[in-house]
Amino acid sequence: MILFNARINKCENFQKIGAFKARGGLNAVLQIASKDSPKSFTTHSSGNHAQAIAFAARIVGLPAYIVMPRTAPQVKKDAVRSYRAEIIECEPTLEAREEGVQTVIATHGSVLVHPFDNDMVIAGQATAAVELMEDVPGALDAIIAPVGGGGLLSGTALAAHFLSPSTSVYGAEPEGAADAIHSFRTGTVQKAAFVNTIADGLLTTLSERTLAIIKDHVTGICLVSEEEIRAAMKLIWERMKIIVEPSSAVALAAVMKERDLFRGKKIGIIVSGGNVDLSLLQKLMGLQPGS
Amino acid sequence: MILFNARINKCENFQKIGAFKARGGLNAVLQIASKDSPKSFTTHSSGNHAQAIAFAARIVGLPAYIVMPRTAPQVKKDAVRSYRAEIIECEPTLEAREEGVQTVIATHGSVLVHPFDNDMVIAGQATAAVELMEDVPGALDAIIAPVGGGGLLSGTALAAHFLSPSTSVYGAEPEGAADAIHSFRTGTVQKAAFVNTIADGLLTTLSERTLAIIKDHVTGICLVSEEEIRAAMKLIWERMKIIVEPSSAVALAAVMKERDLFRGKKIGIIVSGGNVDLSLLQKLMGLQPGS
Repeated sequence: MILFNARINKCENFQKIGAFKARGGLNAVLQIASKDSPKSFTTHSSGNHAQAIAFAARIVGLPAYIVMPRTAPQVKKDAVRSYRAEIIECEPTLEAREEGVQTVIATHGSVLVHPFDNDMVIAGQATAAVELMEDVPGALDAIIAPVGGGGLLSGTALAAHFLSPSTSVYGAEPEGAADAIHSFRTGTVQKAAFVNTIADGLLTTLSERTLAIIKDHVTGICLVSEEEIRAAMKLIWERMKIIVEPSSAVALAAVMKERDLFRGKKIGIIVSGGNVDLSLLQKLMGLQPGS
Repeated sequence: MILFNARINKCENFQKIGAFKARGGLNAVLQIASKDSPKSFTTHSSGNHAQAIAFAARIVGLPAYIVMPRTAPQVKKDAVRSYRAEIIECEPTLEAREEGVQTVIATHGSVLVHPFDNDMVIAGQATAAVELMEDVPGALDAIIAPVGGGGLLSGTALAAHFLSPSTSVYGAEPEGAADAIHSFRTGTVQKAAFVNTIADGLLTTLSERTLAIIKDHVTGICLVSEEEIRAAMKLIWERMKIIVEPSSAVALAAVMKERDLFRGKKIGIIVSGGNVDLSLLQKLMGLQPGS
């Protein structure tokens, strides 16, 4: 059914909080809590990183104040609250999010854990690829990870660089949030020309930090259309019987699209998360009302 | 989140063909092929057993003729065809299905493998519970399996009886297909008073064979409503991040409903399958058009 010699998936949808973000958030919070004396933690996130910091802060017994766009999926807001973190809602712009975080820091003296522009977060995300490579006998030819802010992709690339230099790392990005590919090509952080994608975890742009790593250690970035993302997600749901969020399907969509590039290769995919608002299913799956 | 000491699931949605039916179908086909000289196989099934026989027949290199109700989910028809079996469509009644099979036998001399009224099939289905019990350290207090024709439930009950006599086995059945509970209570095979459930794998009634085993070795049968089935399915999808079909959710729904019965117990659930027609999602999840 799929056209490759091997398909190896790192199923981060089964991870704590339902996404790889638990790795980076937990690593950062544990490191900070072990060295400094933080009073509380804060971050801004459209969803999974929000849960990660809420989850990690609860583990170290400290409060978390999470700035979330009011448009974030209800299931992600509910999950953040389930870890007893406080949500501060803001407008769905990067400016409003950063402003919200500054207000939290001024009010509570919280330590910011940025979703991706943070070495401890990147190191945490890298552990998904480390485990993937440990799980597979022999070297992978390639690992594909979705790219939003670049925390997962840069961590994946560093893990491969240090532990399996023969493994190429590729990013996968929606056409409807095509900033990383332009940043990668130009060498400077670019914004997307337009943003319109169901892959709501991949809306952010790279930082200087993640771009620097990606420039050095990533082989290429593959763009995929919304239709390709939906087809890959449907394939995963129907055949693998696992729930993945659209951002995760972007990586498989890239492998399915770039057949010549990946044909005959031993490929690992980082299935980044599974936090889908089921009430959005109809939209996500492109179903007609009443169908 | 869930209220029990232990939750152990046998994830037959990850089984070949996406459901436990692969076990019974394969056991029967392999046994028949090793003893007799069958020309081909046939069965009638609304879905998963159809795939199981198609899958098993291909393994032994023989044709399969599958009688399916024309209302069976498209995804299940497609899957049967993907194993190169021939589908004979019929009206969605037991009479039409049995008539279709008789025609196939008269035409092709095929060997019928009944979906559940067959000892080899029951023995095959029993292996799910055998593996579940092997996977768990110590004895389970209870195993819950959904009940339609009773192949899975009777196999599960036999497995527990012989391998772990201290483990109680319960069936779980929709209120909208409540035949097994009446058969269990009266001791004779009963039909449901009405049939109206999203659990499309559980529409069949017991046979004398399965009822006899269930009477002897099953502790009780729990009824659940459509709302309880949907809630359990949503919980599994959202929290476990796995795709299960409504029939599978019936077992968890029973555990969630019968809290007093199962509180504090070490419970194993047979998650029977994951073959959902995604175009039916809207209906299954009770979503409003346009929501």
